[in-house]
Amino acid sequence: MLENWNRPQRPEEAELEERLKAANERLAGQQMMIKERGLPVLVLFEGWGTAGKGSVLGKVIRNIDPRFFKVAAMDVPTQEERRKPFLYRHFVKIPEAGKFMFLDSGWMDEVTGECLDGTLKEKDYKKKVESIKRFERQLTDNGYLVMKFFFHISQKEQKKRIDALKSDKNTSWRVGEKDSWQNRHYDKCLSVFDRYLNDTNLPAAPWYIIDAKSRKWAQLQVLETLASGIDTALKNSAMAVPLLQNVFPLERMPKLDEIDLDKAVTQEEYRAELDRLQERLGHLHNKLYRKKVPVIIAYEGWDAAGKGGNIKRITEALDPRGFEVHPIASPEPHEKARHYLWRFWNRLPKTGHIAVFDRTWYGRVMVERLEGFCRENDWQRAYNEINEFERELADWGAVIIKFWVQIDKDTQLARFNERQNTPAKQWKITEEDWRNREKWDLYEGAVNEMLQKTNTTYAPWHILESNDKRYARLKALRIVIESIEKALD
Amino acid sequence: MLENWNRPQRPEEAELEERLKAANERLAGQQMMIKERGLPVLVLFEGWGTAGKGSVLGKVIRNIDPRFFKVAAMDVPTQEERRKPFLYRHFVKIPEAGKFMFLDSGWMDEVTGECLDGTLKEKDYKKKVESIKRFERQLTDNGYLVMKFFFHISQKEQKKRIDALKSDKNTSWRVGEKDSWQNRHYDKCLSVFDRYLNDTNLPAAPWYIIDAKSRKWAQLQVLETLASGIDTALKNSAMAVPLLQNVFPLERMPKLDEIDLDKAVTQEEYRAELDRLQERLGHLHNKLYRKKVPVIIAYEGWDAAGKGGNIKRITEALDPRGFEVHPIASPEPHEKARHYLWRFWNRLPKTGHIAVFDRTWYGRVMVERLEGFCRENDWQRAYNEINEFERELADWGAVIIKFWVQIDKDTQLARFNERQNTPAKQWKITEEDWRNREKWDLYEGAVNEMLQKTNTTYAPWHILESNDKRYARLKALRIVIESIEKALD
Repeated sequence: MLENWNRPQRPEEAELEERLKAANERLAGQQMMIKERGLPVLVLFEGWGTAGKGSVLGKVIRNIDPRFFKVAAMDVPTQEERRKPFLYRHFVKIPEAGKFMFLDSGWMDEVTGECLDGTLKEKDYKKKVESIKRFERQLTDNGYLVMKFFFHISQKEQKKRIDALKSDKNTSWRVGEKDSWQNRHYDKCLSVFDRYLNDTNLPAAPWYIIDAKSRKWAQLQVLETLASGIDTALKNSAMAVPLLQNVFPLERMPKLDEIDLDKAVTQEEYRAELDRLQERLGHLHNKLYRKKVPVIIAYEGWDAAGKGGNIKRITEALDPRGFEVHPIASPEPHEKARHYLWRFWNRLPKTGHIAVFDRTWYGRVMVERLEGFCRENDWQRAYNEINEFERELADWGAVIIKFWVQIDKDTQLARFNERQNTPAKQWKITEEDWRNREKWDLYEGAVNEMLQKTNTTYAPWHILESNDKRYARLKALRIVIESIEKALD
Repeated sequence: MLENWNRPQRPEEAELEERLKAANERLAGQQMMIKERGLPVLVLFEGWGTAGKGSVLGKVIRNIDPRFFKVAAMDVPTQEERRKPFLYRHFVKIPEAGKFMFLDSGWMDEVTGECLDGTLKEKDYKKKVESIKRFERQLTDNGYLVMKFFFHISQKEQKKRIDALKSDKNTSWRVGEKDSWQNRHYDKCLSVFDRYLNDTNLPAAPWYIIDAKSRKWAQLQVLETLASGIDTALKNSAMAVPLLQNVFPLERMPKLDEIDLDKAVTQEEYRAELDRLQERLGHLHNKLYRKKVPVIIAYEGWDAAGKGGNIKRITEALDPRGFEVHPIASPEPHEKARHYLWRFWNRLPKTGHIAVFDRTWYGRVMVERLEGFCRENDWQRAYNEINEFERELADWGAVIIKFWVQIDKDTQLARFNERQNTPAKQWKITEEDWRNREKWDLYEGAVNEMLQKTNTTYAPWHILESNDKRYARLKALRIVIESIEKALD
């Protein structure tokens, strides 16, 4: 894109001023529409060092009410961020509905930087580009407007700017070693940048190359392009997008009605095994902490299936400094206002830690599907989005264990009644539980589809037969132990 | 995609039959919705030789009323087709609104075939992939559903089929030399196919890989995917899509009000020059016929600007066997039902021929824009679509000459009045001409924007100052001559 780039014509000064005024007003006028329509807008500023990204950004946001935008400047990843998946620190920054997020460089800068300093191998570059394309596609598929600007200046212009900044004591600090390095290796950088721009130039999130030779002109290009992008996005609402074919390795799962629920253990067997397995797990926890392997354990299952007690038997075995349990209820307003996976990206463990999710991102294809909290196209698309999400986690090195805690309908009724009739347990049963129970068959259909479509080899489902809770607990412990052992090998 | 492909699980026979029945019924039910909503559906069948594309295609169309679909089997290009741009024979086959077009292999087969027989250089492969991505994007941007299936079988399976077909006298004719060649060079083909699938896997027109080991199972996959794609497409109507940044080399054009219209020639000068120039052009016409250079001359301009007379002075000079004039009025219903560029693709000259368009594809950004015949997003997108269209023509080797025939408002009024008052000329003036005249200022704004945004170096605009028609005619002849001479050099 850069190599065949055609510099746009800078208008005469008078026209430029006039258009600048018009564009500023247009953007100022659009913000209320964005708010009303709940459009989330992510704006990326990438480009050459000293190209003036920061100063143009400063001008652009003057048109927007400070309550409606955030700006983040991307630096090298912190120690903490290095212990999360590559996309983590980017995904958590996505704006909420009706608001802007401006990023002064982001994932492009990170990836091209690694290409240039030689730390990213060709194979890993391709993988990261694939991750980025999926990330951006997930955003636009979910109604985000993603505007990507690349600030372009020539080698000569960059040199001139660096020299000018350096010659003044008050500004010399603004020239980073990276800027000078770029200038000395301009052609090499150009070809790395160009390749990245070509590789990630998605029709739904295209690149716009900004002629950054003059600041005011750059500002005009950004403002006009941004306003045009917003206009287009405001014309659409809730688009349906094509469902992509599964590209992940899947394994067949049994249907729920094929599961034998008669499995049970005696009290003595249970006690002895529980102690033995918990000790083993505690030992493994230390090991994976030292080896910095992150573990994600996801629990889904029927109401009253025994998830809570099952989780407890896992966490009892763990060092409390190395795990976290995330009970997942309906999303908070600030969570609902973002991509549905955002709140899970936000809760990822650090390397070496264990995160247990009591209900998960699979809510999208169960409760959200059946209660109509999202559109058909949304939950149909979600199987692939979730497989992509878990693929990112697996590529990062995470052990992913997904449990479906299964009971039959009679067992649920018995447990509901017991809760209802036991004062100390009454808090555990609500009207909603009874309502959900009425939709058992619909849920069963949704669960079967979910298990079929998301049982990937890298993030497999396991059925916990939980008519006998003790059996289910021992089985869960064994699976967690086996999975961690396999990963530590 | 093929190399990491995960074969989907074939269901048990009973389930397969049941789903097949359901999918057939679903598709049969969808056709009326497609008709009502005017959705055009383009379905591509690509894949290995003997993978069963044809037989599955035969089954799929059984569900559709024959009035609602067409099937085309793509063969090697004919002599006639070889004298058109690469995309021509594909573009002209796009379906009309509310109908299906099924292609039994198409542009993929053509491109990968050329890769495999070594006739396509790396640079040209990349160019063709870019053309194809633009073509498919233009279709989906314009509301087409594009479904792309790749029928996949293993080398062993292919061999088995070829042997079985060959062993029977009644079927041996069905094994082409190409099938056997593919089988002998399976790995090489696999990597060429895989690269192409990756390169053209657009989110809005993704590839679906069909496990073609069993015909019935392949049929089910196609039917279910097709029905799902149709469902998604039916959910949307008239989406706005992001406007892409111009990537073509543009040159500045004067605004209409900057044009000096006082230019004129005397009658004697005109006569002498006209003869001289027409003779020269006639001579060049023979030359470009022999050198097989196609020429496209596009006329736009105000009503009564003198387009007709101007065109006449060009064509008078030409051998009638080697040119065609296309007067462009409002589109016919079958033209309106397709991508707006379709009727122009259909009218492209053969190599060595000249096509003169009296009004053109630029109607999209003038009359269609101003009369509201298309949406804002449609005409805004059209500048880029047109630049892409002309880029294809230029890459094919065409000389493209675009004339804007300019007069001032007073001259138009005088000519209108003259037409009105001259019985022999009254047919030339209509109510519509008067109505358009009232919108002069709006048209002027649209024309200025059009000239700015589509004055590419490879398909430049030329202003013909036509207050003096004779001046304009001589200028047109000179520009045509110069442009052809440059191309013949």
